[in-house]
Amino acid sequence: MANSHNTQNIYDDPQFFAGYATLARSQHGLDGAPEWPALRAMLPELSAKRVVDLGCGYGWFCRFAVAQGAASVTGIDVSHKMLEKAREMTTHSDIVWQHADLETLTLPVNCADLVYSSLALHYLTRIDRLFHTLFEALTPGGMLVFSAEHPIYTAPLRQGWLHAPDGHPTWPVSHYQQEGVRISNWFAEGVRKQHRKLATWINALIASGFELVQIDEWGPSAAQIADNPALAEESERPMLFLLAARRPAA
Amino acid sequence: MANSHNTQNIYDDPQFFAGYATLARSQHGLDGAPEWPALRAMLPELSAKRVVDLGCGYGWFCRFAVAQGAASVTGIDVSHKMLEKAREMTTHSDIVWQHADLETLTLPVNCADLVYSSLALHYLTRIDRLFHTLFEALTPGGMLVFSAEHPIYTAPLRQGWLHAPDGHPTWPVSHYQQEGVRISNWFAEGVRKQHRKLATWINALIASGFELVQIDEWGPSAAQIADNPALAEESERPMLFLLAARRPAA
Repeated sequence: MANSHNTQNIYDDPQFFAGYATLARSQHGLDGAPEWPALRAMLPELSAKRVVDLGCGYGWFCRFAVAQGAASVTGIDVSHKMLEKAREMTTHSDIVWQHADLETLTLPVNCADLVYSSLALHYLTRIDRLFHTLFEALTPGGMLVFSAEHPIYTAPLRQGWLHAPDGHPTWPVSHYQQEGVRISNWFAEGVRKQHRKLATWINALIASGFELVQIDEWGPSAAQIADNPALAEESERPMLFLLAARRPAA
Repeated sequence: MANSHNTQNIYDDPQFFAGYATLARSQHGLDGAPEWPALRAMLPELSAKRVVDLGCGYGWFCRFAVAQGAASVTGIDVSHKMLEKAREMTTHSDIVWQHADLETLTLPVNCADLVYSSLALHYLTRIDRLFHTLFEALTPGGMLVFSAEHPIYTAPLRQGWLHAPDGHPTWPVSHYQQEGVRISNWFAEGVRKQHRKLATWINALIASGFELVQIDEWGPSAAQIADNPALAEESERPMLFLLAARRPAA
């Protein structure tokens, strides 16, 4: 898999890792992420569930799952630095931390009731292989709940606001049909992520056997904007989508 | 239902009706619509099926269904002018033409194997009531296949291309989270259509009991662009989406 089209592990880049540490979601965990209330509302009851977190980062969600009474929690990340930080931040829990590349991940069949992933899957060059793996790993009735960057956000080759003639901020969508790599400069030069259409995400899930439960093209609530006016522009176009899918009960 | 939020029947406006008649899809029927091959590929076999077409317009799809051996075909439209034109263009077939407003439509339960709709549903102010009606009208295993304007296209309050600093055409997305009426000037002043998020369309289908089968954020193929270079800009952002959903088999 070591080729130029491979998924990038930017999180082990020291400059990126240092920048990432400054984010509210890094410093304050789940409550530092404005989409967390919406994503949480999509989750099943976690008590006694076997939970896998793909791209677990600092391990905030894994610790949340433990606190909710999950039977077992596995946090998987491709970044050694992230896993090291997650271990440092975790005490008195038996979370299993696993180093793996999500593009080549294998999981035991029937090992999980919930697979969760926050803002990791848009780095993957291929998504269909992973969805197939997750379908087999989930028990019938089990759920996949994840967030990823929205294709409206990732489509342009250069991501940034433009202003309409009346001065209103607009997000300049172009190249929507051209799926594949997009380069951004986010804490480091040349961060590679992958643009794929919302239809491609959804059809890949269906092709793997999942049934779609809910999708949320997330935007801030009025209360969130009142609390943090900088969030207002997130109403203009969705930066993220949240999705819940189910392996049908047998 | 006669209030200012009501669905607009612009097709009975003489100026609009005359302008609409000049479209390739009006003059050449299904083959004049570049998305038709993709939409057709989503359809089940029509032979011996009971077919309902919502917003049937000139009746091109109804006649196609008859030619494919459908057992019965009902074409429904809110525009008297459209239905009159459909009748004029139809000979030797027993299509039932029905005048109805899709916002208040009622259908017998279990009356259809396929409900089809092309570019009509984005005029509706409410979609959940209709989806519920269609679910009940479809036989278990029956399908709903429709196209509508894509929310990327409908989101901006003023729809039109902007150019990025490098001159590339971009579609200026804004107000994405603000669902509701959008006014455009398309053959007539003040054409009212409704912007709703893709998530809203999908979640409304799921809430009505449908399972999603496939979604296509349609764009032209390379061959179509070679044949008609004006289609190239349709690759920059999807103007339409095509969707197939199923009432699960009992």
